Amino acid sequence: MSTWRDNLRTIEPYVPGEQPNLPDMVKLNTNENPYPPSPKVVETLKNFDCDSLRLYPDPNSQVLADALAKCYGLQSDQVFLGVGSDDVLAIAFMTFFNSKKPILFPDITYSFYDVWAELFQIPYERPALDDHFDLIPEDYYKENGGVVIANPNAPTGVLQSLDFLRDVIEHNRDVVVIIDEAYADFSGSSALELTKEYDNVLIVQTYSKSRSLAGMRIGYAIGNPELIRAMNDVRYSYNSYPMTRLSVALGAAALEDEAYFRETVAKVIETREWTKKELKRLGFSFRDSQTNFIFATHESVPAQTIFDVLREKHIFVRHFGQKRIENYLRISIGTQAEMERFIRETEQIIAQNR
Amino acid sequence: MSTWRDNLRTIEPYVPGEQPNLPDMVKLNTNENPYPPSPKVVETLKNFDCDSLRLYPDPNSQVLADALAKCYGLQSDQVFLGVGSDDVLAIAFMTFFNSKKPILFPDITYSFYDVWAELFQIPYERPALDDHFDLIPEDYYKENGGVVIANPNAPTGVLQSLDFLRDVIEHNRDVVVIIDEAYADFSGSSALELTKEYDNVLIVQTYSKSRSLAGMRIGYAIGNPELIRAMNDVRYSYNSYPMTRLSVALGAAALEDEAYFRETVAKVIETREWTKKELKRLGFSFRDSQTNFIFATHESVPAQTIFDVLREKHIFVRHFGQKRIENYLRISIGTQAEMERFIRETEQIIAQNR
Repeated sequence: MSTWRDNLRTIEPYVPGEQPNLPDMVKLNTNENPYPPSPKVVETLKNFDCDSLRLYPDPNSQVLADALAKCYGLQSDQVFLGVGSDDVLAIAFMTFFNSKKPILFPDITYSFYDVWAELFQIPYERPALDDHFDLIPEDYYKENGGVVIANPNAPTGVLQSLDFLRDVIEHNRDVVVIIDEAYADFSGSSALELTKEYDNVLIVQTYSKSRSLAGMRIGYAIGNPELIRAMNDVRYSYNSYPMTRLSVALGAAALEDEAYFRETVAKVIETREWTKKELKRLGFSFRDSQTNFIFATHESVPAQTIFDVLREKHIFVRHFGQKRIENYLRISIGTQAEMERFIRETEQIIAQNR
Repeated sequence: MSTWRDNLRTIEPYVPGEQPNLPDMVKLNTNENPYPPSPKVVETLKNFDCDSLRLYPDPNSQVLADALAKCYGLQSDQVFLGVGSDDVLAIAFMTFFNSKKPILFPDITYSFYDVWAELFQIPYERPALDDHFDLIPEDYYKENGGVVIANPNAPTGVLQSLDFLRDVIEHNRDVVVIIDEAYADFSGSSALELTKEYDNVLIVQTYSKSRSLAGMRIGYAIGNPELIRAMNDVRYSYNSYPMTRLSVALGAAALEDEAYFRETVAKVIETREWTKKELKRLGFSFRDSQTNFIFATHESVPAQTIFDVLREKHIFVRHFGQKRIENYLRISIGTQAEMERFIRETEQIIAQNR
């Protein structure tokens, strides 16, 4: 007998990092910023006109698009907004990847890319990173339906150079190349300038890491106006009012406080560099991270052991079961005090398990 | 030469109602609530812990799912949450409509249904409403891939009875039947109880109308846990953190103030009934609306004329170019004072154009 179950879209869902909520926890598992949003954001929230919430938001989120354009020296029609960079990337996949040829992204990268490809029935191939977790440029020279590169890459933390990106783009002028810069603010480098040279390059960034607003779900893409228009056509066919009024207001307010932004990013970087030294001292090895996390493996103690014992102590890091990286931990950078506690506990675990 | 443009998803985008912002305007064009959100919502916003915005939201939005479940006497796993009911409906289309048979919805109904069908490449047919804007039950007896009924229907305002719905569902036990109840709170009727009898019925509701929170983008679906789980699998494959922390907090707060909700809904209904009498006096005809808008046509003055002149006077109503309804206006119910101004101006327009 036929049933509605026959027509279900069955899909292996993405499993997000757990969101524990314990008073004494150190949460280093989802790459959030340990510092609160800017005082400008707080002020904007406290003074917000609640009555306006009865009205739909502006479908274009113009206030926020304008603020981002101003911040990056662009025109507003070069900016696309979404409900976090996941929403932005999902819409980019739907908009640009309608070829029968496979899209390309590395075997080890943000674990949502293959989930979207499955969801939207886009063929894909995953060239393997080399043994040092670097991308191999020649892997991206073949015919394809599009290219997606997280830079710096997650969960490896490795940054590829602008020359590398330029080379890949030059070999792929006939498809859209997405550069996912979720962590770029911690690297001091961005491929934003390439959007001026190449009409097929889309840069994706987020408020969830460097701007301390993961809870407000704000992501954006930057590219030539034709790319942005095509994404907006798909966006408006899916949900014409994606951004809450408060996301628009708080997102714009955050950009007004460039000093606070620079200061918190600098603090995270300083703590990251301290943590790197400590991890080395404890016998960890890792590629030099340019993000707000470190992807590390220990010379003798298995990642799973460290993960489990830390968890018992309410310190949460991320462990992926995936092949090639099953002995690695991804450790988000918290405050200096949080990282000191993390190092202290980890040192003990290693002493007890050597 | 091949170009990235070859792989674009081309789509006729939905055109949302305009969002003018003039100090003296009367905005009766997008069916928003004329009354602000509950004082509980304001209080929750003012006391909100801004620091928490650095963290991702709970992927399940459990606080809000629990509050809705409690409000409607359900279990939390019968509730699905989305970024407005548009997001909820889009995900329902993606999740449930994967048959080669066409899905069915009326020729005159919410104008997003065919847009989603196009976007997700779902075949569809649109049986015509009868001349009184009623659905014809036999049209929905044929083999199909799913059924979508807005009840009360938009933009007609017409409510079909529970018996009508039950009959359509009985003829469609092998597909998912979506009942879009965006306006049900203004009708005093809901098909919610049918989700207990039928495992293939999904009810969709929204905070954007009766709950005065269009600006926060909150919609939800209610159905048996198996339907909800399937939607969540798709949801988590698209965007695992769709709801902002503030949407969850304010959405839950709104539900705590049932008295305010009843009171504002009652005020809208009272003004609607007053407006109906006035419109009849002016020579308009319409089906008896069970929503927060009236879909009316005038005996002698063309809808386009009334629309244009009202617009010059900063009174915004909605006019659809679509066949069969090109001579109708959809007029949202504002405050009593706003509707009095609307009636005054309309009376003048009619006097001058008779």
